[in-house]
Amino acid sequence: MSTDIPPTEVATDGRRARGDVTRRRVAREAAMIATVSGLDSITVGLLSERTGVSKSGILTVFGSREAIQVAAVAEARRIYQEVVVGPVWSEPAGAPRLRALLDSWVDYLTSGVFPGGCFIAATSVEYGHRTGPVADAVRRLKREWIELLESELAAAGSPNPVDDAFRIDAYLNAGNTQDQLSGDSSWSGTERAARLALEVVPA
Amino acid sequence: MSTDIPPTEVATDGRRARGDVTRRRVAREAAMIATVSGLDSITVGLLSERTGVSKSGILTVFGSREAIQVAAVAEARRIYQEVVVGPVWSEPAGAPRLRALLDSWVDYLTSGVFPGGCFIAATSVEYGHRTGPVADAVRRLKREWIELLESELAAAGSPNPVDDAFRIDAYLNAGNTQDQLSGDSSWSGTERAARLALEVVPA
Repeated sequence: MSTDIPPTEVATDGRRARGDVTRRRVAREAAMIATVSGLDSITVGLLSERTGVSKSGILTVFGSREAIQVAAVAEARRIYQEVVVGPVWSEPAGAPRLRALLDSWVDYLTSGVFPGGCFIAATSVEYGHRTGPVADAVRRLKREWIELLESELAAAGSPNPVDDAFRIDAYLNAGNTQDQLSGDSSWSGTERAARLALEVVPA
Repeated sequence: MSTDIPPTEVATDGRRARGDVTRRRVAREAAMIATVSGLDSITVGLLSERTGVSKSGILTVFGSREAIQVAAVAEARRIYQEVVVGPVWSEPAGAPRLRALLDSWVDYLTSGVFPGGCFIAATSVEYGHRTGPVADAVRRLKREWIELLESELAAAGSPNPVDDAFRIDAYLNAGNTQDQLSGDSSWSGTERAARLALEVVPA
């Protein structure tokens, strides 16, 4: 689902277009904040400070703090599609695409797309056991990622795509956590995670 | 480091003993809360509500909210020693102790010692990239756990204890996250994690 505004709508409804730009900018900032201090730390006041959009402007666009949190997850998904998954989609399904995906995941983390590391890692743990629309959005995003790994592993001829997807996802999360914990700018956790994950991909 | 009160001190200084009981009860409740909604969600008001100790009583014992958060990590470490590590210490170092440790870890999670799953998993992600005494305590606890795995894997004859400890820790965290996300009371994530971790232990 793209959040891009079709050109005709921009031309015919300037107010809506401006609302969409505000929505996107606020949602993006909310996603950034979530990786550093959690989805719970998102407040309208903080977002107003960071984006320069007034509090009332933010509330007009979103309606509620919960809607902002859900939009933050949607924006993170969009970023994820754009920087991690999209660039490898031209690779053949299976092992080549998985290898490219691991490279692209390392780039995504080491280039600091999100200031607090992996968005899915941060929010899955924070919202894991909760209920409601924010938790559902987090769960869907995590599920979608695992299913992508499972499907590519199956295409690569893995004898057990579910176990192997679990392994790869586990390594990537652990590498992210390790670098976050140690403040390690050599990204040794991320590198180790990718190296061990590569061993799981069928040759 | 034990937080138990030596019997003579209990007899000679009732005020101190009462302070220690309060400290322990509040720290324990704080650790429970941290697994569900994070160390950041700990407030003196919430702890007062949950433990029946007055807010001023809590502040007299701890002095600050940060001191409560640090005490929560120390209490979690104590619980961890008591229910996960202590019971397997009589096993021979290496593979037998690692296998017992994995069993004991599954019991720890499935018996619901903490309402929000693994304390180390929850707090490492929350405090990973922060600085200060709480983050330092979280980092020390995580580091201690990894070093335990590395040392037992070395004793078990693993060709690469650092990689293998990373693998086992990654599986356990991923299993915990999966069960928390899915609300899966069959603990299939935890079981899968332990099964895959067991394959890493040298035969």
